[in-house]
Amino acid sequence: MRPIKVVVPFKLDCAKSRLSSVLSSDEREELALAMLEDVVDAVSGLGRVSILQKDPLPEDRIFDCLRSRPEIEFLECSQELDPALNMVIESEEKKGWPSDILIAMADLPLIRPSDLEELVRTPGEVVIVPGRGGGTNLILIRDPKFRVSYYGLSFLKHLQAARDLDLSAGVFESFRCASDIDEPSDLVEVLIHGRGRTPELLRNLGFELSGKRAACRM
Amino acid sequence: MRPIKVVVPFKLDCAKSRLSSVLSSDEREELALAMLEDVVDAVSGLGRVSILQKDPLPEDRIFDCLRSRPEIEFLECSQELDPALNMVIESEEKKGWPSDILIAMADLPLIRPSDLEELVRTPGEVVIVPGRGGGTNLILIRDPKFRVSYYGLSFLKHLQAARDLDLSAGVFESFRCASDIDEPSDLVEVLIHGRGRTPELLRNLGFELSGKRAACRM
Repeated sequence: MRPIKVVVPFKLDCAKSRLSSVLSSDEREELALAMLEDVVDAVSGLGRVSILQKDPLPEDRIFDCLRSRPEIEFLECSQELDPALNMVIESEEKKGWPSDILIAMADLPLIRPSDLEELVRTPGEVVIVPGRGGGTNLILIRDPKFRVSYYGLSFLKHLQAARDLDLSAGVFESFRCASDIDEPSDLVEVLIHGRGRTPELLRNLGFELSGKRAACRM
Repeated sequence: MRPIKVVVPFKLDCAKSRLSSVLSSDEREELALAMLEDVVDAVSGLGRVSILQKDPLPEDRIFDCLRSRPEIEFLECSQELDPALNMVIESEEKKGWPSDILIAMADLPLIRPSDLEELVRTPGEVVIVPGRGGGTNLILIRDPKFRVSYYGLSFLKHLQAARDLDLSAGVFESFRCASDIDEPSDLVEVLIHGRGRTPELLRNLGFELSGKRAACRM
């Protein structure tokens, strides 16, 4: 198995705005951080983890637990998501591609190491993991020619990009990997299927399951 | 491998009412029927398929293709979903449980035979397949003591019911099995990941993908 460099793009500013009807701005930041930590826990068995940020994390002690983890490095890049990620790919290409690159979104608190082991066993020069609504929640890049394109229907765009470059594309479908947490209706998935900090935080914020397939705040 | 009896509850009346903002009543019936056919295609390799209905299908020729399939039987039961399904379980119990029972919801047009093969390989006296929002999209019952309870957070209720009966419960998680089609935002999944009659019908009805992770009607 080739070594893997894991890249998790993370944005604290205006994080999770689609949850603003049920969470305050501070709470959404807390949620974004809890999800990031759960994602890092799930992926860190695969290799070194780089958290890619547009702005540096504030000097707040809630980030200390992330900063103190030796397997994590923090990358800063002022560019938007696609060019920032493609710069990471290009930089690895220039180094001779010492490791494959797995890009994992930071809002996937249900993923577990076993899901990632299955993903890594999936053949393909690029392996695309669909999210709900046509997104790409994770992508494993095994060829330095590939470039990402996240906006819109990125699942189909990534499949097409692989085809255009004559790269073999694998698709890894997974319930947990597909469950990105964006909207109030997604919180129920965290309370039912989550294990880590994210469901704990939601419970601390007063969310619980109602009988009607919803997460209600008490 | 023990034989499996597949039961698919189906309701034409007021089918898919949450799609009424984008589809007329007739179109929702057509969609419900296309999804049923895709589900039947996916499950029919496992064993005999019983379509469980509250009312008989109308004498309309659009149902002829279902009626003409020898592997399908039509069951009618005037009861609500839970008692109707539990009567099927009891009836098999009285016959000495000649086959296990797989209950599959009729609105899962993304499922493929390979998903079902994996489900059937999952150990457990009951195997529960979560849907989005805490539902149960499929359930494989290998013990005649079990009874279903579908309303509300049925995934958790079924887990608890297995525990109460001292039955081992397996959970089979799958992107395709979790994708029930209920709301307008779900149609994009059909257009991206579907293969059978359902995406064909949606395209014939004028739906296509927009770049914004939505299915738009042209």
